[in-house]
Amino acid sequence: MITLHTWNTPNGQKPAIMLEELGLTYDVVMVDIGRGEQHEADFRAISPNGKIPALVDGDTTMFESGAILMHLAEKHGRFLPAEGQARTDALVWTFWQVGGLGPMIGQWGHFSRLEEKHPYAIERYLAESIRLLEVMEERLSKNAYLAGEDYTIADMMSFPWVKGGYKFLSNASPDRLPPLKAVRAWVDTIDARPAVQTALARLKS
Amino acid sequence: MITLHTWNTPNGQKPAIMLEELGLTYDVVMVDIGRGEQHEADFRAISPNGKIPALVDGDTTMFESGAILMHLAEKHGRFLPAEGQARTDALVWTFWQVGGLGPMIGQWGHFSRLEEKHPYAIERYLAESIRLLEVMEERLSKNAYLAGEDYTIADMMSFPWVKGGYKFLSNASPDRLPPLKAVRAWVDTIDARPAVQTALARLKS
Repeated sequence: MITLHTWNTPNGQKPAIMLEELGLTYDVVMVDIGRGEQHEADFRAISPNGKIPALVDGDTTMFESGAILMHLAEKHGRFLPAEGQARTDALVWTFWQVGGLGPMIGQWGHFSRLEEKHPYAIERYLAESIRLLEVMEERLSKNAYLAGEDYTIADMMSFPWVKGGYKFLSNASPDRLPPLKAVRAWVDTIDARPAVQTALARLKS
Repeated sequence: MITLHTWNTPNGQKPAIMLEELGLTYDVVMVDIGRGEQHEADFRAISPNGKIPALVDGDTTMFESGAILMHLAEKHGRFLPAEGQARTDALVWTFWQVGGLGPMIGQWGHFSRLEEKHPYAIERYLAESIRLLEVMEERLSKNAYLAGEDYTIADMMSFPWVKGGYKFLSNASPDRLPPLKAVRAWVDTIDARPAVQTALARLKS
């Protein structure tokens, strides 16, 4: 019995994509962060940091999307190479998303949605988000996927941030974003996967 | 042959602590980020995101402190439980540091060092850093270490941020920080470990 506690955000989409890719059956509990449900005691018992997503997989409970995807990858032996440089690369790009791409696009999103404008902060996070996307472009110009030739959890971690982030960043600053040809091709490839479509549709409904 | 490319920052200290805890022999290459050495081509060949730390371990090259500590933990079978809830908890708190505690204290540090003051941003990151430290306090009130009864990579990931961050945050806003009794005891316990002292001294010199 698997229960995913989530909401339709980039971080909340990651575990749904992984569960669909693994073909697992799971329940979804929507935690409405607009209403502050992530702060309620029953959710904090599962996710003491008060953030979605969280997963209950039988006797094992966890939060943090990176930990959820690693747990599922290791349990089912898929989407994370078992050893060598390939495993290391999958870990590298997973942590790169968690520590860089996610927080930086996230901060840009926060400041760009505020009524009171903060030009320094918006520029700081816009520039860093673009820099990170350019690092990704360089990587994906030489490799089909972030960890090399195979689709891994590293791709599932970054995909929701890049798909949404690219659209929002380019709408806000169309003159600033480089073409990012390899990144956009990678988004399209992943977006076309049936498991990804099923996951995104399930959280939208 | 192990070479650590690093600088004396919280993220740069993490792999030095892990290497000392494992009793490994390693070379250190200091990458002076004050002089922008992280942007030079020879470093970017190892660390394409242009950030320290990076590690070359024989044939395997990696960046991102989280990936470095996981690689070393798995290779040597130490400081990361092999399975079950204990492994999941170590992953959870490792990702929690990478995606939350590090970026949030880091952003607070950035804005608080600027000459031009940005009160909204300083308050945003101060409040979130305190909230994260309170989540840690709750966890460490019930467990000796972040992942449970054993010292793991999750502790090595958060220790440098909390040791430095607590000092800076409490100097800047002495009236805002809660007592954080369990967090401060945990810092002292880890700080007293000989491997930690050796690592910190090596990067200082």
